Amino acid sequence: MSIVVVGSVAFDSITSPSGKVEDVLGGAATFFSLAASYFTQVRVVAIVGEDFSAEHEGVLKKRGVDTRGIEHAKGKTFRWGGQYLDNLNEAKTDFTHLNVFENFQPHIPAEYKNSPFLFLANIHPDLQSAVRREMQAVRLTGGDTMNYWIDRTRKELTETLKLIDLLLINDAEAKALGGESNLQRAAQKVLAMGPQALVIKHGEYGATIFFREGAFGVGRHPFRAPALPIEEVKDPTGAGDSFAGGFMGYIASQGQLNREVLKRALFYGGVMGSFAVERFGTERLQSLTRDEIDSRFQIFRELTHLE
Amino acid sequence: MSIVVVGSVAFDSITSPSGKVEDVLGGAATFFSLAASYFTQVRVVAIVGEDFSAEHEGVLKKRGVDTRGIEHAKGKTFRWGGQYLDNLNEAKTDFTHLNVFENFQPHIPAEYKNSPFLFLANIHPDLQSAVRREMQAVRLTGGDTMNYWIDRTRKELTETLKLIDLLLINDAEAKALGGESNLQRAAQKVLAMGPQALVIKHGEYGATIFFREGAFGVGRHPFRAPALPIEEVKDPTGAGDSFAGGFMGYIASQGQLNREVLKRALFYGGVMGSFAVERFGTERLQSLTRDEIDSRFQIFRELTHLE
Repeated sequence: MSIVVVGSVAFDSITSPSGKVEDVLGGAATFFSLAASYFTQVRVVAIVGEDFSAEHEGVLKKRGVDTRGIEHAKGKTFRWGGQYLDNLNEAKTDFTHLNVFENFQPHIPAEYKNSPFLFLANIHPDLQSAVRREMQAVRLTGGDTMNYWIDRTRKELTETLKLIDLLLINDAEAKALGGESNLQRAAQKVLAMGPQALVIKHGEYGATIFFREGAFGVGRHPFRAPALPIEEVKDPTGAGDSFAGGFMGYIASQGQLNREVLKRALFYGGVMGSFAVERFGTERLQSLTRDEIDSRFQIFRELTHLE
Repeated sequence: MSIVVVGSVAFDSITSPSGKVEDVLGGAATFFSLAASYFTQVRVVAIVGEDFSAEHEGVLKKRGVDTRGIEHAKGKTFRWGGQYLDNLNEAKTDFTHLNVFENFQPHIPAEYKNSPFLFLANIHPDLQSAVRREMQAVRLTGGDTMNYWIDRTRKELTETLKLIDLLLINDAEAKALGGESNLQRAAQKVLAMGPQALVIKHGEYGATIFFREGAFGVGRHPFRAPALPIEEVKDPTGAGDSFAGGFMGYIASQGQLNREVLKRALFYGGVMGSFAVERFGTERLQSLTRDEIDSRFQIFRELTHLE
């Protein structure tokens, strides 16, 4: 079943120990769409500038992504520049030029409104809430946020969290949002704010999903999926969004939501994140096959599987 | 089959967000011995001062640990004081008084020399090498080290690593020892120095075991065990040594060494580490039952198990 994703499309300039690229296609909605496209029909809502060419759009279209929700505005596309130095887990931002993204007001095409799945990538919580309210047919909403919104717009974010079923954030964000340095307690605090389930992404250590009592009828015990120890991490940009794409894409592809589906989704999230970081930008996500994805799924499974 | 452990016995003074204790029994050999004692016969080699009472020794004896290798010297027992503030993963050391531990020269009792398993806890690499050479009947040697030795005695440590089959260290130590910021590449560098297998402990994220090509006939693929997300971490002191005790203790309890045994050992390591942190010092490790341990093993297994 189809999933709508709302978020950024950007051009990234990235330096890592493996090299340097300029103005490569990126942005949360792009990584998410490409990753999810291997599992289900994806419909993207975003804004781009005049420098976003048919070739750029072709990267998404080639993966079958519905791009009718991409608004073409006057001006330049969102640009971000950053460096990964010793610590590949942390980017040092060189510049952030919001450009057309600064006044992004998501417009949901009428044709998208029957989608049963929605992912609200990292944008202002008020925009996330507005989109969710507009998508009346949605059965399951996933969402992301970041410390910027947690610090500056906690009130608005608190309202948004009531509309999100599955929140996907990283350790630092979970601790900041929950106001707790202990991850397990932070998770409980965040769940009390609204989401049925919380996925905390641990970077190279995988991810854990925590459930509210009674959520999806799956029991309260958390579940953890590992990440593959990767020898060559070229560019960590977009790993979290690719994780979200694999996770939500797999869920959307299944007829039902139960514990086993959520567990497998967590593994598929890790798989797509692990592919994303192997090349700069979205390169690796453009040319995968479902066989490659499922082979890596098996490797991930073997990584922690006891007889 | 029995295992000999050589390392520190100490009195720890610890402050954490959960409270404060003074001069509680600790030290790597103590945590290791108690954790391993639930799986196999443990024989400890250590040095203590005149302040180490029969009551202290009773803690080990009650768990069936052979304490004949504990040397009683003039002076005081090793003392360490530290605080865990916001970040429970990192201790701020208040003081380190080596006392009698400063001149520790491990004496292996004749009765210990038939033990087929050996664990060299974190002491000077030259002492580790000397002990290993003295234990002629040993079939499998595990070892630990720390950044202090990696930085200051790399040459000696390099010699020791040739004598160690299973090295257990944490992420930061692996990266420092391998001279690589990428964990997977660091692991390969460390394995090239001698050990058949390398266990990297990730704290609250679990642990990964990496194998040398051909090691134990178990294949080259790494294996990862999760750690349980724990709500109440009272005192992280000794978590790594308890992990090592569970890991090596379980291995020593099995007749054979294969991939499945090593995998289960990694889970048991995580289980014992998770118990250790629930109370200050060794309190929780003193009064466990094998049933409690196996129940938690099942919880750990469920945490990542896909149907």
